[in-house]
Amino acid sequence: AGVEVAAVSSHRVGRLREVARRYRIPRVHTSHEALINDPEIDAVHICTGNREHFALARRAMEAGKHVVCEKPLAATLEEGRTLAGLAARAPGRVHAVNYQYRHYPMVAEARTRVRAGELGPLYLIHGRYVQDWLLWPADYNWRVDPARSGPSRAFADIGSHWCDLVEHVTGEHIVRLSARLRTVIPHRVPREAGAFEGTVAPPAGAGRMDDAGRSVAVSTEDLALVHFETDRGTAGSLVVSQVSAGHKNDLRFELNGARASLAWAQETPERLWLGRRDAPNAALTKEAAQLGAEAAALTHYPAGHPEGYPDALKNLFAAVYDRVRDPSRSPSYPTFADGLRSLELVAAVLASAGEGGRWVEVAGNVP
Amino acid sequence: AGVEVAAVSSHRVGRLREVARRYRIPRVHTSHEALINDPEIDAVHICTGNREHFALARRAMEAGKHVVCEKPLAATLEEGRTLAGLAARAPGRVHAVNYQYRHYPMVAEARTRVRAGELGPLYLIHGRYVQDWLLWPADYNWRVDPARSGPSRAFADIGSHWCDLVEHVTGEHIVRLSARLRTVIPHRVPREAGAFEGTVAPPAGAGRMDDAGRSVAVSTEDLALVHFETDRGTAGSLVVSQVSAGHKNDLRFELNGARASLAWAQETPERLWLGRRDAPNAALTKEAAQLGAEAAALTHYPAGHPEGYPDALKNLFAAVYDRVRDPSRSPSYPTFADGLRSLELVAAVLASAGEGGRWVEVAGNVP
Amino acid sequence: AGVEVAAVSSHRVGRLREVARRYRIPRVHTSHEALINDPEIDAVHICTGNREHFALARRAMEAGKHVVCEKPLAATLEEGRTLAGLAARAPGRVHAVNYQYRHYPMVAEARTRVRAGELGPLYLIHGRYVQDWLLWPADYNWRVDPARSGPSRAFADIGSHWCDLVEHVTGEHIVRLSARLRTVIPHRVPREAGAFEGTVAPPAGAGRMDDAGRSVAVSTEDLALVHFETDRGTAGSLVVSQVSAGHKNDLRFELNGARASLAWAQETPERLWLGRRDAPNAALTKEAAQLGAEAAALTHYPAGHPEGYPDALKNLFAAVYDRVRDPSRSPSYPTFADGLRSLELVAAVLASAGEGGRWVEVAGNVP
Amino acid sequence: AGVEVAAVSSHRVGRLREVARRYRIPRVHTSHEALINDPEIDAVHICTGNREHFALARRAMEAGKHVVCEKPLAATLEEGRTLAGLAARAPGRVHAVNYQYRHYPMVAEARTRVRAGELGPLYLIHGRYVQDWLLWPADYNWRVDPARSGPSRAFADIGSHWCDLVEHVTGEHIVRLSARLRTVIPHRVPREAGAFEGTVAPPAGAGRMDDAGRSVAVSTEDLALVHFETDRGTAGSLVVSQVSAGHKNDLRFELNGARASLAWAQETPERLWLGRRDAPNAALTKEAAQLGAEAAALTHYPAGHPEGYPDALKNLFAAVYDRVRDPSRSPSYPTFADGLRSLELVAAVLASAGEGGRWVEVAGNVP
Ligand SMILES: NC(=O)c1ccc[n+]([C@@H]2O[C@H](COP(=O)([O-])OP(=O)(O)OC[C@H]3O[C@@H](n4cnc5c(N)ncnc54)[C@H](O)[C@@H]3O)[C@@H](O)[C@H]2O)c1
Ligand SMILES: NC(=O)c1ccc[n+]([C@@H]2O[C@H](COP(=O)([O-])OP(=O)(O)OC[C@H]3O[C@@H](n4cnc5c(N)ncnc54)[C@H](O)[C@@H]3O)[C@@H](O)[C@H]2O)c1
Ligand SMILES: NC(=O)c1ccc[n+]([C@@H]2O[C@H](COP(=O)([O-])OP(=O)(O)OC[C@H]3O[C@@H](n4cnc5c(N)ncnc54)[C@H](O)[C@@H]3O)[C@@H](O)[C@H]2O)c1
Ligand SMILES: NC(=O)c1ccc[n+]([C@@H]2O[C@H](COP(=O)([O-])OP(=O)(O)OC[C@H]3O[C@@H](n4cnc5c(N)ncnc54)[C@H](O)[C@@H]3O)[C@@H](O)[C@H]2O)c1
Repeated sequence: AGVEVAAVSSHRVGRLREVARRYRIPRVHTSHEALINDPEIDAVHICTGNREHFALARRAMEAGKHVVCEKPLAATLEEGRTLAGLAARAPGRVHAVNYQYRHYPMVAEARTRVRAGELGPLYLIHGRYVQDWLLWPADYNWRVDPARSGPSRAFADIGSHWCDLVEHVTGEHIVRLSARLRTVIPHRVPREAGAFEGTVAPPAGAGRMDDAGRSVAVSTEDLALVHFETDRGTAGSLVVSQVSAGHKNDLRFELNGARASLAWAQETPERLWLGRRDAPNAALTKEAAQLGAEAAALTHYPAGHPEGYPDALKNLFAAVYDRVRDPSRSPSYPTFADGLRSLELVAAVLASAGEGGRWVEVAGNVP
Repeated sequence: AGVEVAAVSSHRVGRLREVARRYRIPRVHTSHEALINDPEIDAVHICTGNREHFALARRAMEAGKHVVCEKPLAATLEEGRTLAGLAARAPGRVHAVNYQYRHYPMVAEARTRVRAGELGPLYLIHGRYVQDWLLWPADYNWRVDPARSGPSRAFADIGSHWCDLVEHVTGEHIVRLSARLRTVIPHRVPREAGAFEGTVAPPAGAGRMDDAGRSVAVSTEDLALVHFETDRGTAGSLVVSQVSAGHKNDLRFELNGARASLAWAQETPERLWLGRRDAPNAALTKEAAQLGAEAAALTHYPAGHPEGYPDALKNLFAAVYDRVRDPSRSPSYPTFADGLRSLELVAAVLASAGEGGRWVEVAGNVP
Repeated sequence: AGVEVAAVSSHRVGRLREVARRYRIPRVHTSHEALINDPEIDAVHICTGNREHFALARRAMEAGKHVVCEKPLAATLEEGRTLAGLAARAPGRVHAVNYQYRHYPMVAEARTRVRAGELGPLYLIHGRYVQDWLLWPADYNWRVDPARSGPSRAFADIGSHWCDLVEHVTGEHIVRLSARLRTVIPHRVPREAGAFEGTVAPPAGAGRMDDAGRSVAVSTEDLALVHFETDRGTAGSLVVSQVSAGHKNDLRFELNGARASLAWAQETPERLWLGRRDAPNAALTKEAAQLGAEAAALTHYPAGHPEGYPDALKNLFAAVYDRVRDPSRSPSYPTFADGLRSLELVAAVLASAGEGGRWVEVAGNVP
Repeated sequence: AGVEVAAVSSHRVGRLREVARRYRIPRVHTSHEALINDPEIDAVHICTGNREHFALARRAMEAGKHVVCEKPLAATLEEGRTLAGLAARAPGRVHAVNYQYRHYPMVAEARTRVRAGELGPLYLIHGRYVQDWLLWPADYNWRVDPARSGPSRAFADIGSHWCDLVEHVTGEHIVRLSARLRTVIPHRVPREAGAFEGTVAPPAGAGRMDDAGRSVAVSTEDLALVHFETDRGTAGSLVVSQVSAGHKNDLRFELNGARASLAWAQETPERLWLGRRDAPNAALTKEAAQLGAEAAALTHYPAGHPEGYPDALKNLFAAVYDRVRDPSRSPSYPTFADGLRSLELVAAVLASAGEGGRWVEVAGNVP
């Protein structure tokens, strides 16, 4: 929507030129420093592995750029605090984190309805984020390695999306939690990450344990079970797994309130389930006349013309560039404060799991 | 199937005669003692409220009857131990507890497949049992009252079914758990239980809080969140609620194993979901040629002719009376040992919740 | 519900005694004449193949019995007229035909809502009845043979159920139609029908074409496509097939009216889909408080406790015996007039298909 | 993907400039002639109402441009023949028609599987394309007016998509058909079409019949019922409607073959249903490892990351521009020959309906 991808950078020069030619990107840089310091560039997107986020984001901020950083914002809570602090001192710049699931129309609609009180006070929040791309012992990805991904894998990689989404939709904040982490596949065979380039999430591994049989001990969790409580006292339960056969990117949440329930699932994103005691359950779809202003603004096609994951991403980037053009707007995208929030939850999950599931308080920037 | 309902008993004589006439039951008794001691009677079904189970079951056993007792087997763990002990000393009699969900064909099929190793070792068990019939503060039933139902409500009443089913299907036993119980509606308006006679579970209450506004403080939980671990180390998560709008009798479980997944939901009982990493997910239906012997034996109509809850009950009773006729068979129904097992889980849940969700061991008769 | 199965008859004496013993049926007859003339018998159920319906029903009526006849009422339109005529002259007796799908609670609810005008005038009726049990050339059953089943197979056997249901629910009558019949498997291997005894519909054949390879030419249709128009001018479309892989007993219909739509599917019978332009689509379930009196009366368990095909049959028989006990009631079950109606539709379908799909008028007893 | 939108044209200058600025389109023309004759332009997209397609396409072809024309290719069969003839004489140019549903990954997968014989010979093709945006009498759009849209509305506007898709997937051609057309709302209130600009399909009308109450007689059909037969003798049935409450853009088809069935629905486009007699039915999803090369090439995100309608459009345009760049490729998009094909089907439907549903042959370019 009227934004020019002005430059890309990579240390792999061949691939870089190919991408630039294919997408007609005028400027190429063979180092990220060059790109970050290019005066023609307004905004920098950081899409590297987790470990690099901190240094790249900090440099881009120091260069005065708008920054859109992939989640997690940083590899440690400490780094996250530094970045969020820097961001707070440059309120006229965009500092976004890529929690794109917020930008589905029906998620916006859920948020509108919950906040308008359609469900009444909430009693219970429950759901799951389950995948199967790490099911076989031969599946491998840099995310398995704590040195590159951080000490939590399943929770930090996907559970964090679920928590971001649920806090965003409900306006409630998780203040206490109890977590169990499990590594069900104790050894995996490392493979070259390069095999997966060009996909958003790594596709499924090619097979079962190979004969050569190099393998490494795995310390990051394959699955996470979390109980939590919000600042308004609502109880919650979340199941996270990367080893649940048959589930591809199955993020779903349900909210049970005193008046009604509401549920949404990422794999069928154009449908909002409304559960009721005294009327038939209903399935709201993306029919403009039945949506609030927030959801309608994220809707680009008529009802029955499914929009999906790329459109949620597009909506997030549109929100970012609307504010790049007009910094007087307030941010309508996830910010570095939200990125920090997520790191606090990861830290709490690790702390609780490390103590046998003890209930722990979440540190926090909750207002 | 060839069993005569020979007698009924009740203290309410008018209703008793009406039932006897309608169902052509030859013998009526105005006290349960008279029925229990009637020499024409082989087997006694105990369908009263929870509090009466113990005394009635003990007397019926003392009179040498076969006994089919509604769940829970008894109001306390101690009573349950007494009854299970008595049952162990009369192995030629039937002592069944009404966990009828086991007797759906597709549940039997799930059990067959899990035990045959189709899923591989299990990694994760998760699910829920959620209802909405106690959503409004004006909803009331004897189950709300701990003096009549016991100290746990949502977990003991329905969560116990889920655990029974999952242990039955997987052959694994829950050995440790952490539970949170919540009473989200602190006061309710008591009403006459009689209003619901003749339904299997009490239907939804008639409305919201009435004006007269008598109300009582509620101590039993509206919802329960449980994390658990089985004797084979499988992790588990269960959500139980009687205040989740839009859910009527929504019991569902999913098993994620090293090779495949499997899921079943009570409200669509003829479908078994098979989740796979390397092949499309599939929906097994009640097609005799595709079922194992156990499920086929519980199937009375061709595929596409839905059998439901009454048929599961019928299957349980058929299993009971097959053994009444031939006590040399081994029991293929839930026994008093299973009833005791369930009380042990309830006790563990109450213990854990009472200590802020601490992980506790489940006492037990696990072999 | 208080009805005694007083006698059974069969020419196969061994099987007869086994059934009588298993179900505790006091009287057995080795000929249907003896049963029909037994003065202890009030009502006769005719469950033999189609060809025998006429003679048995006539004799039972002559003996003054109540008669419940399997569908189709008779093998020819002429026979059907004779039986309906006899029935009209004995209005105090029950003459029922087994269109049991009418007796699902949600079908009754559909009828109540359509008749109350909730959909507005109807614009379009569409649906299907598709199965796969005759998919392979080696699948065989007496229904394939026109001498035993009649000249139409797929339409007469199952399409007739769909039409009965849709006329029952809408109160509209099909007055004109255009039909295409197709026999896609021109030869089949005949097998002993006896193999399937004891199932309601014959289960799937045991395999593909056998080596011996006896085969017979097939003249009855495997699939039927029908366009129709009702007495109120509503357009309709129906697809019928017994060779559609993956469909077991997949009867479904949808009604599109000026105000709303409604759909029901037999394999998920407890759900009524409500389609709307200006509100989210909804799924009505068997929640007593949301049902009309007719549906509530057919409901025996709370919402979420699925009742199925056996319960629809039970409801039909209950309607029959309510009127056996009290003939002053008006029939609330499908009558011989409905059975004749169905034969008229079969005749019209055969006539249209025989003339290349020409639109033909349906003869009729439409009031 | 590397294609520059070089120019736009419109007679409405204000809107034109706004669009050009928003999407950074360098060249603007205030007449289509100017755009068509602009030597910097390689390819022209024609997105005007149906009536203008012919003249614009012809001029663009005369100017030697590649042409992408919205469906229908032209307003009459005669015009379509002219355009297809012109296209045949310029084989090195792209002449595409916008049947974008072909370009969903799972549609490509369906085609691959059908052609590989996975279903066996087909017995039956059935489905529907139903919408509700013209349900109320106050709903209006230029499509209602035969002078602007052509003599067929529901079939030509949407039924044509269904037929294109089914012929594309099966490789079979509809050679004979019988059709019924119905106008259920005889008068409508015309409104300014301009109100809907910027949406792909017109959104739902604003309300019911207004008070002013201007209304026009409607001659184009609201619904169409079609029976057909293909060149390989497969039977077919299609239901088309723009007045079916609760359906937004509900295009679905099912294929029943001698070995298996397959079904796809546009509103849940990432799922391909596989129906089987001897194995559980399955739901293939967009998992790259399970897809053929054609579907994999249309897949840009991992399984579980839903791609939708915009992505199908994108895939069609990518196929167009791949061939613009390299005209030696054979077309992998719908061509003007396909556009003509569709007009032949429309003509056959109108002819059959005009003669009371008589079976008519489809004229044809079937090879
Ligand atoms: N928002 C989401 O839902 C979502 C989804 C997937 C991935 N992610 C995040 O995106 C990030 C990348 O994940 P991925 O799976 O794409 O990993 P990946 O390893 O497939 O891709 C990372 C890319 O970064 C490149 N790179 C590394 N250092 C670079 C540098 N200094 N300059 C330029 N390029 C450099 C690598 O060559 C590689 O191509 C991670 O932080 C991950 O958490 C987020
Ligand atoms: N297996 C299941 O899924 C399931 C479902 C529902 C209820 N239950 C169990 O069934 C029991 C009854 O529950 P309910 O909801 O039907 O309760 P209810 O209060 O509706 O019914 C209990 C009945 O027992 C009668 N009764 C009490 N004392 C009696 C006596 N001494 N002799 C004869 N009759 C006596 C009462 O008159 C009443 O009709 C409970 O233990 C409950 O947990 C089990
Ligand atoms: N309402 C429905 O949905 C439905 C479903 C299935 C079958 N039917 C109808 O039921 C009838 C039977 O079908 P089926 O599939 O069960 O056939 P089937 O061949 O399996 O059973 C017919 C039975 O009738 C017995 N029989 C034949 N002549 C008899 C006689 N004179 N006295 C006593 N018994 C006799 C046979 O021994 C056999 O057991 C058919 O008319 C069929 O259309 C209706
Ligand atoms: N492929 C599909 O699924 C699909 C979906 C929707 C519409 N369509 C087709 O797209 C076409 C447009 O339909 P619509 O619903 O968008 O109609 P519309 O009336 O909303 O839009 C047509 C646009 O064309 C403009 N226009 C007219 N003449 C022009 C000219 N000479 N030069 C430049 N612009 C001109 C009008 O100003 C208007 O903005 C129709 O042919 C329709 O059948 C196809």
